[in-house]
Amino acid sequence: MFSEKIIQHIQMVNKEVENILLNREPASLYKPMYYLLAAGGKRIRPVLLMLSCGAVGGKIEDCIKAAAAVELLHTFTLVHDDIMDNDDLRRGMKTVHRKWDDATAILAGDGLVTVAYQTLLQTKSNMLKEILECFTDGLLVLCEGQALDKEFEEIEEVTLRQYEDMIERKTAKLIEVSCLIGGLIGNAGATEMENLKKFSFSLGKAFQIQDDLLDLTSHKDIAGKPVGSDIIANKKTYLTIYFFKNSTPEDRNKFLTIREKKKILTSDIKAIKEIFIKTGTISAARNKTEQLIDQAIESLHGLRSSEMRDQLEKVVLKIKNRNS
Amino acid sequence: MFSEKIIQHIQMVNKEVENILLNREPASLYKPMYYLLAAGGKRIRPVLLMLSCGAVGGKIEDCIKAAAAVELLHTFTLVHDDIMDNDDLRRGMKTVHRKWDDATAILAGDGLVTVAYQTLLQTKSNMLKEILECFTDGLLVLCEGQALDKEFEEIEEVTLRQYEDMIERKTAKLIEVSCLIGGLIGNAGATEMENLKKFSFSLGKAFQIQDDLLDLTSHKDIAGKPVGSDIIANKKTYLTIYFFKNSTPEDRNKFLTIREKKKILTSDIKAIKEIFIKTGTISAARNKTEQLIDQAIESLHGLRSSEMRDQLEKVVLKIKNRNS
Repeated sequence: MFSEKIIQHIQMVNKEVENILLNREPASLYKPMYYLLAAGGKRIRPVLLMLSCGAVGGKIEDCIKAAAAVELLHTFTLVHDDIMDNDDLRRGMKTVHRKWDDATAILAGDGLVTVAYQTLLQTKSNMLKEILECFTDGLLVLCEGQALDKEFEEIEEVTLRQYEDMIERKTAKLIEVSCLIGGLIGNAGATEMENLKKFSFSLGKAFQIQDDLLDLTSHKDIAGKPVGSDIIANKKTYLTIYFFKNSTPEDRNKFLTIREKKKILTSDIKAIKEIFIKTGTISAARNKTEQLIDQAIESLHGLRSSEMRDQLEKVVLKIKNRNS
Repeated sequence: MFSEKIIQHIQMVNKEVENILLNREPASLYKPMYYLLAAGGKRIRPVLLMLSCGAVGGKIEDCIKAAAAVELLHTFTLVHDDIMDNDDLRRGMKTVHRKWDDATAILAGDGLVTVAYQTLLQTKSNMLKEILECFTDGLLVLCEGQALDKEFEEIEEVTLRQYEDMIERKTAKLIEVSCLIGGLIGNAGATEMENLKKFSFSLGKAFQIQDDLLDLTSHKDIAGKPVGSDIIANKKTYLTIYFFKNSTPEDRNKFLTIREKKKILTSDIKAIKEIFIKTGTISAARNKTEQLIDQAIESLHGLRSSEMRDQLEKVVLKIKNRNS
């Protein structure tokens, strides 16, 4: 899907991360920091950063450090979120706090956010202060998003608007930060920055709702978690919120009866999927994703035509059509 | 102890922190972030930062943001360390994870480190990049120190050299970072930076060994914890390590018999204190602190004579003579 050039640069980002974390002492800090990064991941944020830089006429060679930084920051959020959400699996492997313990995972996360800054600070750009501000402001918004997500666990009724506000902070923000930092490194003008902002905001939201959808519709495990894991964990997603607002009491009872079972089987997940299809929940989530994707592409077309812009469009379509 | 000017500026730092954290939404994030900062604390790091800046001829008015940043960073380390160490009390109050829960405290810590960067980034200085590097490199060393501290819990024998290496990273580093950032804001020359570095390194180590000593010798509660809490928690400190290396099997047995009791009473702590006096443990820790304090003052005298340097010396003597 990506050009040879981008693939080479992703490998450079991976190498950068490896150089930062491999074979450093004390291993009790650095090994748990590297563990999840070595397990793979789509590297979507570094790719978006590099392509955004390229799309405004910048050199992607200048992006390696910043691209590594956003991936390190993303990994930090995964490690800490997994502790807070009590999750056992990530990328098909034990989460850091399950493989080691909570204390190790807390510290690994702290270390990751620190090396993210250390790496970002090595970016050669006359916009370094703005880049660091964008990164930091984004990180605080991410923390706010996570706080809201935890609040929602305690609230009975969450509206779709509240939910969208939460995912704008928790998921879309880091996608936006990645694209904007790419723009800053590429010395984008004000209109280009505005287009990158709109583009990444829509894309980030689409990405999360797609994630919610795939939890139930994917045939494979998604992100190394079993199908229906959001339902099993009783998480509020675009689907469950839409469903509760747009279903008959009978359908809701059917759903709740399954949800309250001690052990939820594959057949139960299938039954929930059927209720969600019948109530239009699945198609609503799909429509919302498509609408956001269309908005993202429209903003993208505000940028000058280029090979990098074409590749950004391919990333968008890949996200739209992904099935895991 | 401080001049009117410094006291005014500490109040400005407190006000800055209050402005950043008070009345912000979501409260589920910002309230636990502010809780420990509102509980007091000596503000030793902001004071050292401002005085170091003044001692090299800089304006302490330029330090408010950076001074707030080091206090925010310090608070972050307390919040996360308390989870990792399973501590119940801090500054005489419940720790954040006890007052709320682990997830809230993890996120509060993450938020604190982020606003620390946000605030530091507002420092007006042509050395901003160097300031951020100093802060970030220091933070990573802090993480390494905490990892070593956790490792020591699993190791039977830790040498005094290993222990000193750990406290150089876990405690002395942030004292050093505070003084060096003050120097950078004050546009210190290379020799001044070198003196500030040596000064803060010795002072930071003295500060920690003094802390270890006060855990047992203080008549009041220290840092809101009961006397002997390090002993009760079976922590490795300068005292316990020195004692195990420099005592008879009989003394060690006496100590271990008390340590293994289900409930350690005030009289037990008193008995341990007596064994530590008899074996020269208390005086060894006291000598080590004094030696480090002398080194700190010597490095301080490498700086030009000034009112701010005099105040730095008073801070050192205050640390030397503190009893809580």
